[in-house]
Amino acid sequence: MQLENYIRDIQGFPKEGILFKDITPLLIDPLARKKCLNILLDSLKGQQIDKVVGAESRGFFFGILLAQELNAGFIPVRKPKKLPFKTLSASYDLEYGSASLEIHTDAIQRGDRVLIHDDVLATGGTAKAVCDLVEKLGGEIVQCNFLMELTFLNGREKIKNNPIFAALTY
Amino acid sequence: MQLENYIRDIQGFPKEGILFKDITPLLIDPLARKKCLNILLDSLKGQQIDKVVGAESRGFFFGILLAQELNAGFIPVRKPKKLPFKTLSASYDLEYGSASLEIHTDAIQRGDRVLIHDDVLATGGTAKAVCDLVEKLGGEIVQCNFLMELTFLNGREKIKNNPIFAALTY
Repeated sequence: MQLENYIRDIQGFPKEGILFKDITPLLIDPLARKKCLNILLDSLKGQQIDKVVGAESRGFFFGILLAQELNAGFIPVRKPKKLPFKTLSASYDLEYGSASLEIHTDAIQRGDRVLIHDDVLATGGTAKAVCDLVEKLGGEIVQCNFLMELTFLNGREKIKNNPIFAALTY
Repeated sequence: MQLENYIRDIQGFPKEGILFKDITPLLIDPLARKKCLNILLDSLKGQQIDKVVGAESRGFFFGILLAQELNAGFIPVRKPKKLPFKTLSASYDLEYGSASLEIHTDAIQRGDRVLIHDDVLATGGTAKAVCDLVEKLGGEIVQCNFLMELTFLNGREKIKNNPIFAALTY
């Protein structure tokens, strides 16, 4: 089974000039989904993880699956005004536009070992914002992992202080 | 362990007069999360499920966990312009405002046995829209399940043709 076959290229989404990587074929196939999950888990080599942070909203899918397998807490990082309790916010630039993300301030305790997950590492703006939020709350980042890395955008430069893993690279 | 203790009441979110049920304490506790997942699974009594449909975005969390446990496909139903492939759309009224939801047209094959999941059954608008989408694509709805049902809003009336289950009722 080639994981690549479960990622669908969509030309011109969400706007002209963007080649979007659609992960819904991966989500809908139980075997491919499990294979992908196992690849992400193997990269952690049994390291202790206390919390998995997933970025809204495509980071929620494998983020919570990873948390379940790792017996860890799951923390959603969300777009502004979506989280109802006290939040910390970080702004960032992304591949097409700019935005900010929030985390609940009570989600991470100082010293928590944190795995950060998102579907795609593109320019690294989102990942950098999530790293900033986790670090400001005192979390130790064990790894930033992704389903895909778009290497030509060099996003890993923005989060180079952390271990980075991607199941697929383009 | 009382599951109720992992749901946090937030008064006045997202706007005045709404008592919001925050599920992030449930997501962050591995044991409570597993207990909740098992309650949802037990309600299915071993029925065959081909696809689990989760509604954006809080329905994604337990939706994909259920899909994983049931060895089923996971299908995200999303807000407009989020899904990149060909979509079918349904409009609905919700507790505070109105909106529409989309599903990929290739996500469901005629006769697929479908479990629908969302975090809260409130007025039933979202759930009804998701049911409509699934049925229009030829799916057979096995159950609509929820983490919580707000019984005083009588949302189950809107989806009364389907089996309904909620882990918690208020």
